[in-house]
Amino acid sequence: MASLPPQSVDAVVIGAGPVGLFQVFQLGLHGIAAHVIDALPHVGGQCAELYPDKPIYDIPGVPHCTGRSLVQQLRQQIAPFAPALHLGQQVATLQRMPEGGFAVGTSAGLALHARSVFIAAGVGAFVPRALKLEGLEAHLGRQLHYHPDPATLPAHAEGQHVVVHGGDEPAVAAALACADAGAASVVLLHRRDAFQAEPALLERLQARRDAGSIRVVAAQITGQETASQRLVALQLLDPEGQPQRLPLDQLIVCLGISPRLGPIADWGLALDRKQLAVDTAQFQTSERGIYAVGDINTYPGKRKLILCGFHEATLAAFGAAELLTGAPVALQYTTTSTRLHERLGAAGQGVAAG
Amino acid sequence: MASLPPQSVDAVVIGAGPVGLFQVFQLGLHGIAAHVIDALPHVGGQCAELYPDKPIYDIPGVPHCTGRSLVQQLRQQIAPFAPALHLGQQVATLQRMPEGGFAVGTSAGLALHARSVFIAAGVGAFVPRALKLEGLEAHLGRQLHYHPDPATLPAHAEGQHVVVHGGDEPAVAAALACADAGAASVVLLHRRDAFQAEPALLERLQARRDAGSIRVVAAQITGQETASQRLVALQLLDPEGQPQRLPLDQLIVCLGISPRLGPIADWGLALDRKQLAVDTAQFQTSERGIYAVGDINTYPGKRKLILCGFHEATLAAFGAAELLTGAPVALQYTTTSTRLHERLGAAGQGVAAG
Repeated sequence: MASLPPQSVDAVVIGAGPVGLFQVFQLGLHGIAAHVIDALPHVGGQCAELYPDKPIYDIPGVPHCTGRSLVQQLRQQIAPFAPALHLGQQVATLQRMPEGGFAVGTSAGLALHARSVFIAAGVGAFVPRALKLEGLEAHLGRQLHYHPDPATLPAHAEGQHVVVHGGDEPAVAAALACADAGAASVVLLHRRDAFQAEPALLERLQARRDAGSIRVVAAQITGQETASQRLVALQLLDPEGQPQRLPLDQLIVCLGISPRLGPIADWGLALDRKQLAVDTAQFQTSERGIYAVGDINTYPGKRKLILCGFHEATLAAFGAAELLTGAPVALQYTTTSTRLHERLGAAGQGVAAG
Repeated sequence: MASLPPQSVDAVVIGAGPVGLFQVFQLGLHGIAAHVIDALPHVGGQCAELYPDKPIYDIPGVPHCTGRSLVQQLRQQIAPFAPALHLGQQVATLQRMPEGGFAVGTSAGLALHARSVFIAAGVGAFVPRALKLEGLEAHLGRQLHYHPDPATLPAHAEGQHVVVHGGDEPAVAAALACADAGAASVVLLHRRDAFQAEPALLERLQARRDAGSIRVVAAQITGQETASQRLVALQLLDPEGQPQRLPLDQLIVCLGISPRLGPIADWGLALDRKQLAVDTAQFQTSERGIYAVGDINTYPGKRKLILCGFHEATLAAFGAAELLTGAPVALQYTTTSTRLHERLGAAGQGVAAG
């Protein structure tokens, strides 16, 4: 992890889901440029990760959309404000600086000094479930890979003895991709010989098993063996209760991706049943200059709806604009304000699209 | 004005602007059918009346729309819930009934007994500015017409001596339409001989003046003459200070349409600088069961933005759902809830459109 000198920025938005994206838009209307950080490698958050193709009917003025199309529309809406995106990394640290503002540090070593922070982290960062095994994390990125991007699989698999661990579609798909990529051997390791995936993938798995290019092992992992700082084998317990040893070069773990509140709980902000407590005038947390919007916040009457997050992000942007300028900020309308038209048109988008 | 026996309804929404329309949608998701009342003869409110063609950039997920297209989208969104629309009439009375609920009475004689009321009246009812002249209102609808629907002009004008009063485009357009419709005579009456309208309309006016089919009279109206309960003439004062008499059959008054808070101020609800004070958990006014959403309400942090009204309408619907059922109402998602899909699909719309 590289350690860069902190860059001074006006606003950091934590979370690139729909509410985080609209936060960027509202800040942009106030002339405030935003940096966006998200644990996922793409924008869209829960919407894009959990229900990209499912219908959404309650976005006002949008009778019907999908998570994917909503995110696409929001990306177009914020295009004039061209936010700096820092994806595939989690915010690890957030602390007030003696000179004012906040130090924001990510799992990828990014360091920002932010005048205002907007936590739009939804139900938390979407992170792969880890395989708990003492000493295993030392091999991360070299021999251990969690839910790797399919495009990177050939590089991990070719000529290697690969073990893929998991029972759902991502595990089945990864095993097939490794076999396709010319692995020396592929073992699909799950606690039992039963897999959840599309019928077409299960058929391809069966064909590979029949051909001997994928072997299924039903067992529990009990330990690992390291030699010369390299992971060389897994220790297993088979269904008959017998210990087994499974040598390998690469371990690909697909145990699911799930949201974690993670370090947010450690930042000293007031919590109410694991949600960040905010006021309803600016959606500010207990810390001046840190706002929380969308599913992660709570206040009397709170309902976890995307459209409520849009309102929260709007009032939070006014709050920050007043904090940053030290003066009241009057409402302007995108319909009539020349200044807003200039800001929206800054990148040749928005107004020009009209 | 007919006096009908009051009909019992679950919800009355006052105002058919974007926020009133979305209020119908949110109530519909809770299975609550709404009656909508608006002073204008069409839905859309301020959006449709004041800026139908101007761009709006800050509806979340809609990078660009116009007032007209936003209203059209909202109409499509609420179609599954088929609200009862009572247009072209103002709510005149609103009072709590001893047996519970509220008596709602309109200027057109409509009487409803509502279990819950949602005031989404924006800046107030859009009503034509009246010509203040003692006794004149007695002729309303027979010989006196304020900003009449252009489609009704031929019926008022044909074979009649028509006076059109006003100096802006609606007055010029009405005078031309009356001349086209075969009026016996058309006088365009304004305090001076100068009119504000599109160049094309002004050219047509000049041509009609040159042809003698429209006469312009510059004068102030000082009185009216009635004979056998019919309006027979206007009394005028010309620019030289001389009294004049202008006989007529029909008087068409186009002095502008402007918003008025109107009777809302008399309903005994707590006001804060002419806005209805609400809480931010349910957007309820000082009266239990009466909610206020959109530009007409106020609370700490309030910004008069359509998208904020959408949020307010959403929480108000939850508030009313809990009031009407007497029990807490859990959040359901349109993405996953079978019950919401049934409600959205009730009219073969919504879900079917997916």
